[in-house]
Amino acid sequence: MSEKTTPSPRIGIVMGSDSDWPVMQAAARILDEFGVPYEARVVSAHRTPDLLFDYASTARARGLAAIIAGAGGAAHLPGMLAAKTTVPVLGVPVPSKHLKGLDSLLSIVQMPRGVPVATFAIGEAGAANAALFAVAVLACGEDRFGSELADKPAVSLSKQIDDFRRRQADKVLTMKLAKPE
Amino acid sequence: MSEKTTPSPRIGIVMGSDSDWPVMQAAARILDEFGVPYEARVVSAHRTPDLLFDYASTARARGLAAIIAGAGGAAHLPGMLAAKTTVPVLGVPVPSKHLKGLDSLLSIVQMPRGVPVATFAIGEAGAANAALFAVAVLACGEDRFGSELADKPAVSLSKQIDDFRRRQADKVLTMKLAKPE
Amino acid sequence: MSEKTTPSPRIGIVMGSDSDWPVMQAAARILDEFGVPYEARVVSAHRTPDLLFDYASTARARGLAAIIAGAGGAAHLPGMLAAKTTVPVLGVPVPSKHLKGLDSLLSIVQMPRGVPVATFAIGEAGAANAALFAVAVLACGEDRFGSELADKPAVSLSKQIDDFRRRQADKVLTMKLAKPE
Amino acid sequence: MSEKTTPSPRIGIVMGSDSDWPVMQAAARILDEFGVPYEARVVSAHRTPDLLFDYASTARARGLAAIIAGAGGAAHLPGMLAAKTTVPVLGVPVPSKHLKGLDSLLSIVQMPRGVPVATFAIGEAGAANAALFAVAVLACGEDRFGSELADKPAVSLSKQIDDFRRRQADKVLTMKLAKPE
Amino acid sequence: MSEKTTPSPRIGIVMGSDSDWPVMQAAARILDEFGVPYEARVVSAHRTPDLLFDYASTARARGLAAIIAGAGGAAHLPGMLAAKTTVPVLGVPVPSKHLKGLDSLLSIVQMPRGVPVATFAIGEAGAANAALFAVAVLACGEDRFGSELADKPAVSLSKQIDDFRRRQADKVLTMKLAKPE
Amino acid sequence: MSEKTTPSPRIGIVMGSDSDWPVMQAAARILDEFGVPYEARVVSAHRTPDLLFDYASTARARGLAAIIAGAGGAAHLPGMLAAKTTVPVLGVPVPSKHLKGLDSLLSIVQMPRGVPVATFAIGEAGAANAALFAVAVLACGEDRFGSELADKPAVSLSKQIDDFRRRQADKVLTMKLAKPE
Amino acid sequence: MSEKTTPSPRIGIVMGSDSDWPVMQAAARILDEFGVPYEARVVSAHRTPDLLFDYASTARARGLAAIIAGAGGAAHLPGMLAAKTTVPVLGVPVPSKHLKGLDSLLSIVQMPRGVPVATFAIGEAGAANAALFAVAVLACGEDRFGSELADKPAVSLSKQIDDFRRRQADKVLTMKLAKPE
Amino acid sequence: MSEKTTPSPRIGIVMGSDSDWPVMQAAARILDEFGVPYEARVVSAHRTPDLLFDYASTARARGLAAIIAGAGGAAHLPGMLAAKTTVPVLGVPVPSKHLKGLDSLLSIVQMPRGVPVATFAIGEAGAANAALFAVAVLACGEDRFGSELADKPAVSLSKQIDDFRRRQADKVLTMKLAKPE
Repeated sequence: MSEKTTPSPRIGIVMGSDSDWPVMQAAARILDEFGVPYEARVVSAHRTPDLLFDYASTARARGLAAIIAGAGGAAHLPGMLAAKTTVPVLGVPVPSKHLKGLDSLLSIVQMPRGVPVATFAIGEAGAANAALFAVAVLACGEDRFGSELADKPAVSLSKQIDDFRRRQADKVLTMKLAKPE
Repeated sequence: MSEKTTPSPRIGIVMGSDSDWPVMQAAARILDEFGVPYEARVVSAHRTPDLLFDYASTARARGLAAIIAGAGGAAHLPGMLAAKTTVPVLGVPVPSKHLKGLDSLLSIVQMPRGVPVATFAIGEAGAANAALFAVAVLACGEDRFGSELADKPAVSLSKQIDDFRRRQADKVLTMKLAKPE
Repeated sequence: MSEKTTPSPRIGIVMGSDSDWPVMQAAARILDEFGVPYEARVVSAHRTPDLLFDYASTARARGLAAIIAGAGGAAHLPGMLAAKTTVPVLGVPVPSKHLKGLDSLLSIVQMPRGVPVATFAIGEAGAANAALFAVAVLACGEDRFGSELADKPAVSLSKQIDDFRRRQADKVLTMKLAKPE
Repeated sequence: MSEKTTPSPRIGIVMGSDSDWPVMQAAARILDEFGVPYEARVVSAHRTPDLLFDYASTARARGLAAIIAGAGGAAHLPGMLAAKTTVPVLGVPVPSKHLKGLDSLLSIVQMPRGVPVATFAIGEAGAANAALFAVAVLACGEDRFGSELADKPAVSLSKQIDDFRRRQADKVLTMKLAKPE
Repeated sequence: MSEKTTPSPRIGIVMGSDSDWPVMQAAARILDEFGVPYEARVVSAHRTPDLLFDYASTARARGLAAIIAGAGGAAHLPGMLAAKTTVPVLGVPVPSKHLKGLDSLLSIVQMPRGVPVATFAIGEAGAANAALFAVAVLACGEDRFGSELADKPAVSLSKQIDDFRRRQADKVLTMKLAKPE
Repeated sequence: MSEKTTPSPRIGIVMGSDSDWPVMQAAARILDEFGVPYEARVVSAHRTPDLLFDYASTARARGLAAIIAGAGGAAHLPGMLAAKTTVPVLGVPVPSKHLKGLDSLLSIVQMPRGVPVATFAIGEAGAANAALFAVAVLACGEDRFGSELADKPAVSLSKQIDDFRRRQADKVLTMKLAKPE
Repeated sequence: MSEKTTPSPRIGIVMGSDSDWPVMQAAARILDEFGVPYEARVVSAHRTPDLLFDYASTARARGLAAIIAGAGGAAHLPGMLAAKTTVPVLGVPVPSKHLKGLDSLLSIVQMPRGVPVATFAIGEAGAANAALFAVAVLACGEDRFGSELADKPAVSLSKQIDDFRRRQADKVLTMKLAKPE
Repeated sequence: MSEKTTPSPRIGIVMGSDSDWPVMQAAARILDEFGVPYEARVVSAHRTPDLLFDYASTARARGLAAIIAGAGGAAHLPGMLAAKTTVPVLGVPVPSKHLKGLDSLLSIVQMPRGVPVATFAIGEAGAANAALFAVAVLACGEDRFGSELADKPAVSLSKQIDDFRRRQADKVLTMKLAKPE
């Protein structure tokens, strides 16, 4: 079902339609970069509600440490996953055609007391940040107890995050501004 | 579970919390007025997702002709009911504390292609109108095939709707405007 | 007047201008797919108000079970149809040039108590869903009393809806995600 | 029907419900102040559509020079009056309970090309300004051809407007600011 | 200064920049169509405030019956004209680059009590409608006292408006909808 | 005219109505606190446009180093002052009754290229911050050339600002949080 | 500095002002309920930026597993904490006086790629959910490696979360709806 | 680090990324036009927070009279600079991909009491105006004490501003409007 799944995934990336993949693959790219195994698949809250329930119900047992869920418009996927699992759910508002993702954002972030969804920015930046956040959560555990990943990365996640931060700082520090035209 | 249920309900009124009842009882009042049997109960998409699935899955078999669902904030109840049943779902955006129901409205109305939710105005007006709409749907069938209600009302639903419309027109026609102060 | 009308229409599709047709034909396509006869025509609330009143006033007698009305900007067509008929009116907010359909949505959904308009999502998704909703309403009657359509479809509407839902679930289940670039 | 009507009204003030009167009487007060005869009545687009059509159709023949129409939420009254008469229609967005009149404003102002509604601010300020605008339109004619009002005011409308402007300037000029607490 | 001025203009069309002309010429085209003389020129509230004051102060004496003012963003032109003249001012919100004219609309329509600006829709539709509204105001006077235009049109403005309305109704009535693709 | 004016004012505080004073006196209080002489008066863009022009035109000659202008709704005062003077204008969006100052903010901040208005937050916080900003501008000059104030404060403005910042930091550092109830 | 700190805190609760405490103590109450040690203190991004940097820089070394940060208006606290630490930051938009927290929400959630902030709903619901999310993150580690809390709770966090969910489901299931008045 | 810096800069132009330069160079062009020395560089609040603190802390000592800071989305750069320096900070909301700069605007302008950021329009107009505002602040000092610029411009800043205003007025006065097509 999922086209892009690494072995023994620790993170699930789900989205309501394959048309969300151009946005959501920004999350996959981050996880690839950090060597964190994940699975990516399409799970639609409205078109495959049973799959959604099944996916959420088995997430913990399958060893997922977090689920990154992207959806647009009346975006119910992240909230309904969170209703069915206690695995942390990270929501990504996918830009919608007419309202540009404001509807997606409000549908995801305004969860009622008792069932949290951690929400990130609209679009690709949000997808990438959800993945970075998931890595940070994994890194916390790794720091204390050693890596749980089957393919232990040569470099710890914490160090990788520090390196990532340093690289992006360096990128800023070396940016050149052209003479104004 | 439900406090307010008439026998052999044809319409389900559901809401995410009893705090939505002051808004949603505007729907119940309309159904009482038209003599349409209904059930009203609390079903939370996020706190009782299994109940939601169960409620939706059995709705058709239990004889419901429509479900009126009210929810606020990240309002997922109407859309998830619609994902699990083909009984028509009527969504009512309940006003939210901070964003005044704009979040509720967008979360309900912006459903993706394939799973419709008929949406009504924010708040009590929307709840009442959802009920009037449900009565109109029942009236269509009744006009053609006779009442299916166990307790047949003395007056047909169609005639009741016409009377309701006439009364509300008369109310407008007799409104008095005081001299401006 | 109407270019696209099937015999003995049960559903009316109306819109304020032929420029709305690219959006509204998503409704027509659904009805074609389900074999439900319909009429599609341009009725402008502001430019042809008498036609609007005439259309609404005769809708019930002409056998319409629902009217799907699309309009943009200060979108008055659905609400004024609902004011003149008790046939259920389904409103579709057509995207507007500058405010992207937020004006259309609020103009349609925020109806006052007493005159309901069932509102769907902005744009094509909403048009398709309004049609699916109309089919569901017809299916309810058909289940109980047999098809009223002149050209009885070989497959009942209820079964067609179930098939439609199954197909769209299958489509989700077989979606492939490419490797992130 | 109308509670507040002066003889031979030149201006019509209409609103969807008597609950709009606290806002709309700001228009009546201005017309009283300028000695311009008017009629004020409740005409609901959705609850009394025939009255709306009748009111608009006869407006010109009854000598109305402008119609001030207030409505809230999905505010269709001003636009539908404008669709049925060529008498200038001035729209006043009445504040709505949940969206504070933003829905009313967009429903009134975003009219399509061909049927204009002159729109004013949300609430009382808008109602008063619509009346001042109507007086200014009457004043234009009066300046050229003499007063058409049955009860000719001792002071011409143009002069009254100048006086009104002067008084409100004077009021500003004499405002006192207390020492900051 | 003005590039497009007909003799003895009765209507002024002003705008903050020549970049607004593609929108505002929709007003000019309507006036051309109805044979109403007008002047069109650039008057910037912020860049030529003295010209704005001068333009407004002399408007009445120069025989203008209405001023159509278009502006975008922090759109102060219509309101400041209205502050300096009692000639009716019709405001047209020009679409802005980033906020799509929502800023323009609010800057124009939300005038305080005492200084009215009649506001029309964002963009070309609003510009055309402001002109139609101005024609309607002129028509009122003409009906009572005969045309004041130097070049009396062969057909009265009132009749022209009726014809315009009939033509646009006819256009709707003959619209053809293609078969859905 | 102005009720609250200190001798040889360096800062002008203007507002459209005395009803804005409860908001705008937050600016006056800051200037009092720093010992910066100012004048506070009502100048309405729409009701006293000539006064506005006069005020702006003479501001430089009267020695004003900045003008703090507060206005609500279609807030034209700051922008029109800026159009008539090159003295820096600081705009404060006063909360409006229905749209809560969003209209005021957009009317003030979205100025076209060429005529800047420095805009601050909606309401009292913005008024206080405009005053603090004005003090900072004065402090820059004072640091280089000595105080220009007639009544030289014992402590330089720069030092006062540093003290102000320190006090507000200290206030944060000593805030106590009660045990959650 | 902090009034409410339990020993060996694992979670930091910070906010820009003690006026945010009525909202943010909803987070503290959840942590108290689950027996998770935390510290709560006021750290203002704008008034105590050095404290903010210091707090963030030492967070990891002090053993914090997550920081819950609440702020309103131009809410920079969560994002700046996230810029200075790789400890996961959970942002809570505190309702603002005029824009009701929409400004707070957008200021927090729209972080650029590279520096994630997990954002929750506006107001108390968001504060409580941020705490529940933090507990869920801690529970993941505990499940695998045993409790790290000094005062080991008798019941594991995972089991407590399951109990919490069950209790809130039970609360829904036993809600009674009164007869409509 | 900075690509575009003139000697002894008096104004700092900073932005979160080089992708903001197409917008922010509108500020640089104005300063070039007025002969005001400036530095332009990339300083990211989130990716280089230490650089931000360093930049702000040394701004006064390095002789900067104002800092123009552009940022988009959750735009924290202007506010955090203002938290760390008392040099006046001018904020420019850079248009964001999905919300078009509304998020940037609210993140910048809604600063809490005590730490002001002078905010300008979204996009290039705002960048240019921030620069014009900075020039006006410099001009105030120059008028009183003579130019502080190392390369004294032949024409005083005040005179240059007057010339700039005159030129832009002249540009308006000579704009030609083409005949409407």
